[in-house]
Amino acid sequence: MNFCSECAHPVSLAIPTGDNRPRYVCNHCGTIHYQNPKMVLGTIPVWDEDGDMRIMLCKRAIEPRHGLWTLPAGFMENNETTAEAAMRETVEEAGANIEVHELFSLLNVPHVHQVHMFYRATLLDLDYAAGIETLEVEMFAADEIPWEQIAFQTVSHTLRFFLEDHAARSNGNGGYGFHTMDILKPRPALVAADAG
Amino acid sequence: MNFCSECAHPVSLAIPTGDNRPRYVCNHCGTIHYQNPKMVLGTIPVWDEDGDMRIMLCKRAIEPRHGLWTLPAGFMENNETTAEAAMRETVEEAGANIEVHELFSLLNVPHVHQVHMFYRATLLDLDYAAGIETLEVEMFAADEIPWEQIAFQTVSHTLRFFLEDHAARSNGNGGYGFHTMDILKPRPALVAADAG
Ligand SMILES: [Zn+2]
Ligand SMILES: [Zn+2]
Repeated sequence: MNFCSECAHPVSLAIPTGDNRPRYVCNHCGTIHYQNPKMVLGTIPVWDEDGDMRIMLCKRAIEPRHGLWTLPAGFMENNETTAEAAMRETVEEAGANIEVHELFSLLNVPHVHQVHMFYRATLLDLDYAAGIETLEVEMFAADEIPWEQIAFQTVSHTLRFFLEDHAARSNGNGGYGFHTMDILKPRPALVAADAG
Repeated sequence: MNFCSECAHPVSLAIPTGDNRPRYVCNHCGTIHYQNPKMVLGTIPVWDEDGDMRIMLCKRAIEPRHGLWTLPAGFMENNETTAEAAMRETVEEAGANIEVHELFSLLNVPHVHQVHMFYRATLLDLDYAAGIETLEVEMFAADEIPWEQIAFQTVSHTLRFFLEDHAARSNGNGGYGFHTMDILKPRPALVAADAG
């Protein structure tokens, strides 16, 4: 950020009165330009035919992680709820007709200023079609998930949580839970200690 | 938003190629300035002495809702997790020493572009002190909650969910759950119908 979006004068990093961290502050009109984390919302779209359960994944047509597989997900927009954002992204990326269920996972990714959330969802039919940000949409059985080609850690952890809950549920040992996790970047001090 | 924060030229509302909604786009450098919902994080700080349970509320010293009561909460910052944000806000607003537990509630407030989340928390002592955004910090028993003077609907719903779960738990009928809710503004059409 170089200029004030209100008055076009230059901004500087400064700690405003009563605040405790540097913000971009306009040198002319005094507007404080806060920067906050963003939410990424998605679904785990499932098709279950007589216990033969498959999960929808999308192959990314865009950077980052072009060509790798993800659950349908994207940035939440103003004026929508988390569930509406998850539904919209699933329609945009996979052309999928779904029913959205409960929130299933919430994962913090603080070093990129993001919180990722995934809802469980049921596919209403198999008439899906890749959107413009997707190369290919495919349904995967539990033992077919391409673990080495998953685009994001938040997606692989969510898939793992889901398959664990699904297996427990199939065995009569519980239902789907709500899972939280923090994806922390390895800290320099720890990396140095490991290397030493 | 009037000007580009990168190059200081005027911005216009336009739908970028491949997008489906208006964004502020710079007429000079082409930067698209996305605007996304913000997260508000807080805690439900509890002191329980031999079953005599009390909840901490803060009387707001700032607008909006100056003089009304809230759970300690505020905007999540970059570079922190949701739990860290909830802890920080509780320290800043109430000077409270807490242990943060599980995420308890997530409430959408789409008309103000916010998602509110509250963590359950245990007070480690009663050495709290109002921060600069707080007039007064007080501990309330379940039957003392000032329901008519709660600052935000997300807070009153979270308190209600919490007291329901706490009562069920005390009676051996379950534990603390995870609760989601959408706070939707009454829609003009519905208001008109009610008035007719
Ligand atoms: Zn300015
Ligand atoms: Zn520009």
